[in-house]
Amino acid sequence: MYKLIELESGVCAADGFFADGVSAGLKPDGAKDMAFVYSESFCQIATTFTTNKMAAAPIKHCKAKGEFETNFILINSKNANAMTGEAGVADIDEILATLPDCVHNPLMSSTGVIGVRLPKEKIIKGAKLFDLTKRQPHAAAQAIMTTDSFSKEKAYRVELADGTHFHIGAMAKGAGMINPAMATMLCFITTDAQVSVQEMQEILNEKVEVTFNAASVDGDTSTNDTVMLLSNAKSGVYHKEAFGEALEKIMRFLAREMVRDGEGATKLVTYKVTGAKDDKEAEIVAKALSNSLLVKTALYGEDPNWGRIASTVGASGAEAAEELLTISFDDVCVYKRGALFFDAAMEAKAAAVMKKDSFTISCDLGIGEGSFEAYGCDLGYKYVEINADYRT
Amino acid sequence: MYKLIELESGVCAADGFFADGVSAGLKPDGAKDMAFVYSESFCQIATTFTTNKMAAAPIKHCKAKGEFETNFILINSKNANAMTGEAGVADIDEILATLPDCVHNPLMSSTGVIGVRLPKEKIIKGAKLFDLTKRQPHAAAQAIMTTDSFSKEKAYRVELADGTHFHIGAMAKGAGMINPAMATMLCFITTDAQVSVQEMQEILNEKVEVTFNAASVDGDTSTNDTVMLLSNAKSGVYHKEAFGEALEKIMRFLAREMVRDGEGATKLVTYKVTGAKDDKEAEIVAKALSNSLLVKTALYGEDPNWGRIASTVGASGAEAAEELLTISFDDVCVYKRGALFFDAAMEAKAAAVMKKDSFTISCDLGIGEGSFEAYGCDLGYKYVEINADYRT
Repeated sequence: MYKLIELESGVCAADGFFADGVSAGLKPDGAKDMAFVYSESFCQIATTFTTNKMAAAPIKHCKAKGEFETNFILINSKNANAMTGEAGVADIDEILATLPDCVHNPLMSSTGVIGVRLPKEKIIKGAKLFDLTKRQPHAAAQAIMTTDSFSKEKAYRVELADGTHFHIGAMAKGAGMINPAMATMLCFITTDAQVSVQEMQEILNEKVEVTFNAASVDGDTSTNDTVMLLSNAKSGVYHKEAFGEALEKIMRFLAREMVRDGEGATKLVTYKVTGAKDDKEAEIVAKALSNSLLVKTALYGEDPNWGRIASTVGASGAEAAEELLTISFDDVCVYKRGALFFDAAMEAKAAAVMKKDSFTISCDLGIGEGSFEAYGCDLGYKYVEINADYRT
Repeated sequence: MYKLIELESGVCAADGFFADGVSAGLKPDGAKDMAFVYSESFCQIATTFTTNKMAAAPIKHCKAKGEFETNFILINSKNANAMTGEAGVADIDEILATLPDCVHNPLMSSTGVIGVRLPKEKIIKGAKLFDLTKRQPHAAAQAIMTTDSFSKEKAYRVELADGTHFHIGAMAKGAGMINPAMATMLCFITTDAQVSVQEMQEILNEKVEVTFNAASVDGDTSTNDTVMLLSNAKSGVYHKEAFGEALEKIMRFLAREMVRDGEGATKLVTYKVTGAKDDKEAEIVAKALSNSLLVKTALYGEDPNWGRIASTVGASGAEAAEELLTISFDDVCVYKRGALFFDAAMEAKAAAVMKKDSFTISCDLGIGEGSFEAYGCDLGYKYVEINADYRT
């Protein structure tokens, strides 16, 4: 068996990884706005990217490489390098060509405004400030923030029964998994586990579905969403189950942190759908709930308006019927299979649950065995404020 | 040929139709909250209802009738009679049984809060206030409002080349086609055209797709959405093309009025998508744009953030590519097939368009011949205010 030990670290938890953030003048007031992740030795890499057909230049640049090893990622905020065509990809090549010789097959990752060419000179100057011997994961995590109100990191040491161990650590940004204000989600995960690139990609794909892809702030998918998992194999150790568990824990934590930091959000809500025809239908219902404006504004108003939950389930397209549906706020059941018993006392109980920072809304569809858990937040005045005036 | 002549009327424009609104104490301050539509002679009826699987009791009640003739619709606001199970349907039968003898096969239609039984006694008392000799279409249109800030009516006299004519008129409610705060859309259309029920249903289905189903306030589909078209054939006249055109004009007008009255909305935007692979893909893109929170908040902020338009097109799932896409705000082209020319002068021009109450955002995907037009509104603080606290 194995043990996961949480570390106070991020992308430098794994042996041989370095990272830092610097200020290149992209953000005002000298805030950190460029970061790097560097490994002394070459890494295998697994990636998942946005499904948006307007995928940004850094994504096209990475995809064009096919299979490859790398040891460097340069990340900038404030400019997404999206809708910039071939010129946007050429800008990346030009910037990466100025990096020091120890850098092999470098990648770039960007987040910020769409439709504006990168400020190349500033970024090239910024990259000259990188000190590749620095282990400042927190500074890196801060540099990649845009509308985020806090940085997001997580790391584990995985100790196996035979006394060996490996590490896995990550940083992420996003005040909305799903593209609020082009805020984009970016996540960089490093490990020294000795895992094959095929297996790494397979596990990453599987875990993305139940973590980042289960989180939503506003239902808009960014042009820049990126998850990169780098392994330098330095530990010489691997254990599939332990690796998968640590990876899922890290990604779920970061996904939930993004939703909790959702633009203007005051609540993190878990939508637990059970009893659906199958898992796919449960996912459809859970995501419909987490994306419904009516549900999100009811959360903000702390109004236990279960009718909106029922209506959203009904509108989702999944198989459902009012005489089979059960709805609960944490352990307070507000509607059960056609029985109407939502009186003032029940409303007070449900309203108390909704005052919490974090709670669960459960819907049992009463049809089959399908289940899915999604993460969402409320939508209040602050979301409008942030997004009505993002570029200025 | 034929002429459409606009009338200052609604559901009483057609011969033999009567309507009025009364106050039954469902709304505070004696506001009108119950309406009827009555025809002296029996009517054929065509209907379209919500696709929500939690369809409300009045919809189940109507659907259970199969094919039938009617001459009376009773409409109440403040209570949707949804999620009320068999008891909700029995309540309708009980209420309708108290109507006078001249009423044949009456229907009920409801809008308001979900999950609460109808206040039967109040509604039965209210119905006793109906005077079936009244032609007060405007009072009826006011009585069916919930979060609407103005009532919605439209009517035409259709004059044919041979000197004959018929009428078609309607009223609707909805501050959101698509279920804002369970506000629901309801639309009642009356005509004295001599049209067969099959043809009436066929034309209604076709026109709903490009009018009400092209409009969106918040992407949530209500449990109660209803369109009813009643014909008493009194004119003895019919002309398919003229009837279809008048019906489409009425429904498009009412659909746009609903969006213009979208909860908290300050702008009515037409999304005109052309050059898509086919009409279905154009519809997907147009509806993705009208439902995108990022686009809606940018509209509210009067920010010509075309990057959000591009990203939403890319995320919609339809075939699209940045080097083929063209985006315009009215006649101001802001992005064209990969060319970036959005400078300060261009931004000022586009921002001027966005200050208008109503304008068009056009996206030419540059791929095929598919096109679709959808209607949407902005999302501002007021939407949050209305929906965070609807029930109280």
